[in-house]
Amino acid sequence: MFALVLALFMSPQQPAAAAQPDTSLRARVATWRAAREVPIVEELTALLSIPNVARDSVNIRRNAALIVSMLERRGATARVLESPSSPPAVYGELLTPGATRTVVFYSHYDGQPVDSARWATAPWKVVLRDGPLTAGAKEIPFPAAGGRFDPEWRIYARSASDDKSPIVAMLTALDALKALGVARSVNLKFFFAGEEDAGSEHLGDMLRRHADLLKADLWLFGDGPVHQSRKPKISFGVRGVMGVQLTVYGPARPLHSGHYGNWAPNPNVMLAHLIASMRDEEGRILIDNFYDDVLQFSPAQRAALDAMPAVDDQIKANLLLGRTEGTGEPLAAQVSRPALNVSGISGGRTGDAAANVIVPEATAYFDFRLVPDQRPERVRSLLEAHLVERGYHVVHEDPDSATRRAHPRIIKVTGDAGYPAMSTALDLPVSRAVIRAAEATLGEPVVVEPPLGGSLPLYMFKEVLGVPLIMVPIVNHDNNQHAENENLRIRNLWDGIELYAGLVAKLGRMWGPVQ
Amino acid sequence: MFALVLALFMSPQQPAAAAQPDTSLRARVATWRAAREVPIVEELTALLSIPNVARDSVNIRRNAALIVSMLERRGATARVLESPSSPPAVYGELLTPGATRTVVFYSHYDGQPVDSARWATAPWKVVLRDGPLTAGAKEIPFPAAGGRFDPEWRIYARSASDDKSPIVAMLTALDALKALGVARSVNLKFFFAGEEDAGSEHLGDMLRRHADLLKADLWLFGDGPVHQSRKPKISFGVRGVMGVQLTVYGPARPLHSGHYGNWAPNPNVMLAHLIASMRDEEGRILIDNFYDDVLQFSPAQRAALDAMPAVDDQIKANLLLGRTEGTGEPLAAQVSRPALNVSGISGGRTGDAAANVIVPEATAYFDFRLVPDQRPERVRSLLEAHLVERGYHVVHEDPDSATRRAHPRIIKVTGDAGYPAMSTALDLPVSRAVIRAAEATLGEPVVVEPPLGGSLPLYMFKEVLGVPLIMVPIVNHDNNQHAENENLRIRNLWDGIELYAGLVAKLGRMWGPVQ
Repeated sequence: MFALVLALFMSPQQPAAAAQPDTSLRARVATWRAAREVPIVEELTALLSIPNVARDSVNIRRNAALIVSMLERRGATARVLESPSSPPAVYGELLTPGATRTVVFYSHYDGQPVDSARWATAPWKVVLRDGPLTAGAKEIPFPAAGGRFDPEWRIYARSASDDKSPIVAMLTALDALKALGVARSVNLKFFFAGEEDAGSEHLGDMLRRHADLLKADLWLFGDGPVHQSRKPKISFGVRGVMGVQLTVYGPARPLHSGHYGNWAPNPNVMLAHLIASMRDEEGRILIDNFYDDVLQFSPAQRAALDAMPAVDDQIKANLLLGRTEGTGEPLAAQVSRPALNVSGISGGRTGDAAANVIVPEATAYFDFRLVPDQRPERVRSLLEAHLVERGYHVVHEDPDSATRRAHPRIIKVTGDAGYPAMSTALDLPVSRAVIRAAEATLGEPVVVEPPLGGSLPLYMFKEVLGVPLIMVPIVNHDNNQHAENENLRIRNLWDGIELYAGLVAKLGRMWGPVQ
Repeated sequence: MFALVLALFMSPQQPAAAAQPDTSLRARVATWRAAREVPIVEELTALLSIPNVARDSVNIRRNAALIVSMLERRGATARVLESPSSPPAVYGELLTPGATRTVVFYSHYDGQPVDSARWATAPWKVVLRDGPLTAGAKEIPFPAAGGRFDPEWRIYARSASDDKSPIVAMLTALDALKALGVARSVNLKFFFAGEEDAGSEHLGDMLRRHADLLKADLWLFGDGPVHQSRKPKISFGVRGVMGVQLTVYGPARPLHSGHYGNWAPNPNVMLAHLIASMRDEEGRILIDNFYDDVLQFSPAQRAALDAMPAVDDQIKANLLLGRTEGTGEPLAAQVSRPALNVSGISGGRTGDAAANVIVPEATAYFDFRLVPDQRPERVRSLLEAHLVERGYHVVHEDPDSATRRAHPRIIKVTGDAGYPAMSTALDLPVSRAVIRAAEATLGEPVVVEPPLGGSLPLYMFKEVLGVPLIMVPIVNHDNNQHAENENLRIRNLWDGIELYAGLVAKLGRMWGPVQ
């Protein structure tokens, strides 16, 4: 379906014939896998059994060592990459005779910290259930050697989905191709990060230090979930994000509203006017020049958005919504735009604790979601200009008494540095090749997502390495990633093996000639 | 000072000559008091020692019985007045031969509930300190018989200021007049309420049941503090108040702001726009027709506001304010107007607990302060019309799923019934008489406050009994009323005795003839 849409935007000098679906490879991989489901899952289970919080340096290195050995078992040269004070990344390389393109496959082996008390079973005790826990599924024994897994069964453990299973899926795909005698079409490199879920603080240094080693024509990211419809999805970008907190000030102590209201400035009212001045109720950001750096959707992006499965009505019903923001565009289009999401407001008390006071301060926390070519530092400067325009004296620490006395309106701006969006054009030859290879492999259209609504610091790969990035997720959307009871639906692991095998086998051939 | 200002608005048929200050009575009362400070304070101490939370019916009746006996000791007929399920009020009557006017003196003997853990000493253990606790004052022994009190010493106990000391001041004033052979100028009645600090739930019934007994030409309220400048103050009204809470709704559960923001309605943003639509940053209320029922200040009120001591700069400095709301008018004028004070906003979290979510709901709590002739039910209806005008479906209970699905915007409106303002015209003969009698007694101008910024349900006295009310407070403004470590500055008790003695002696003569 998407290939059809995309064809409208293909220029004549590109290879004209869309690949005919050839799903024989997929079927052969599935047959191969069906005979060895238990050892495949056992390899995943062994990896999931090692605790993997980034600051747990002993266990982090146990994970890395195991993954190095897993790569070596596939004939790859492998080792850990270091950056000072960072958990190591695992690097692997598997050259393909005659291949002209090199693809780095990315995943991360560290996981989010856990709140064990909230887990039904211990986070690093790998458990099999006969369905989703949310539907009351029970723990069941793993099948004995030679046995099969019902594809709706689920594996529960930290990082079952995010992000160890893509590592196993990719390596198993290599096993399948080898066993079936199918040639790889590209050189392969592997980069498995060890601190993504801890904020990737050392990622820039890691990439710069090992830039030569990591040279490639494409990075494929095996991270994140497939579409909510359970259809396969390929994402071509992420939005950037920047967290901001604003605090406005009133009297130095709480005052009786009857005796001082209407005279002492009311921080809750100031904050309300400020928020209203920054964003309307349809999501439009009202800060001057905010949209200056925003690139419009390309025709290919527009077409991809239009082609995405319609999920709005179902989600609206599920969320009990009587309306959505915006001008009637679907969810996918709305979350492809820049956003200002006010996630927290607080000033004084409501409900049973309410009291008739003028409070000393009120605070709002929000995130800006950024799109190409917005830069966080530029957005912060536009925000502060907006605040100054509205009469505020901007500070970045708590104002002292003299400052409070000296300025009619004071606002404290804090937050994080944020990072920009990353986008890969849909009409690059490599983008078309990935979509075609995936659709040819799976025998069904994939959902093409111009950017993911969420944010990851993928801009860093593009900026440091100058290489296009494309996300090819495999895990189920309802995997509870980052939270308790993270899980992987077995069917998604099987589909992932097939997808990755197909990409490795077909991508080089669909890419077109090196220019 | 005020008498001068007021004279500008006197019509020719009124008694033209302002009373010459005759402070000989004040001096004589002071001399009389100086010889018996210990027994005066002992009577107050005995009253303060009885716990007085309205729901503590046993102790409430012990308070009432003691006050009945205190009244009887002054030759008044006295008894408790009942209303079903209510703490009793104490009623007393002391006729004056030849008097043509009857004045009811109001106070309340119940007090606010206590949080004993926050008190420096137990709330009903009466303690003397050599100054304010906030300045580190130490507990000292009470003087022995015949001793004197330093006027800056303070008595600490629940209701030391609010509102038992006015009872003792008034009854001591009667003792002084009798001892000095000074005639009373009015008939006196006393109404000491037993549930004011519990919300006066039964007050309307109490007044209606005993309306004949409570007939009078004036009620004088011995409640509240003097001016912040420590100058004597007479107040001619209070604002009404109505508490309102608004809750607006977004998705049924918290959503990832990257994946759903800009699409799922954001309750924090909705609330901000709503608040901004209701009130500007200078206190002006933007709800259609809100000001229709608001009476303008009368020339006398305007003159009184202009004559009030200038305290703004000092309070601004104390509160670290760089500006105030409004168009530059002083505090007293600002709190004489209707207000919308947003005292609480909450939606999601800020600070360390902030998370990038779209929250399910956001809430604001605020009070409307009302002035004559606004009615709370009318204001609520204007508010709801404003909400409807902005597209909201108004509910008064939590909306169910079907309601949430059916309406694009839903708002829950809750709060209290509120009550209207009470105002006594400054240019009534009785108002002039009270000001003149007070100034003549004290030998200094009194601060005339057109309305108090705060709220008390005084409208009920006016509506049920059809009588003017004037507030003649005596206690210090820094008395911590309603909170821990409530206290009375001794000087305020002495001044109060002198003021009340002067009012009783002079008021009837300055009132002018009965029409």
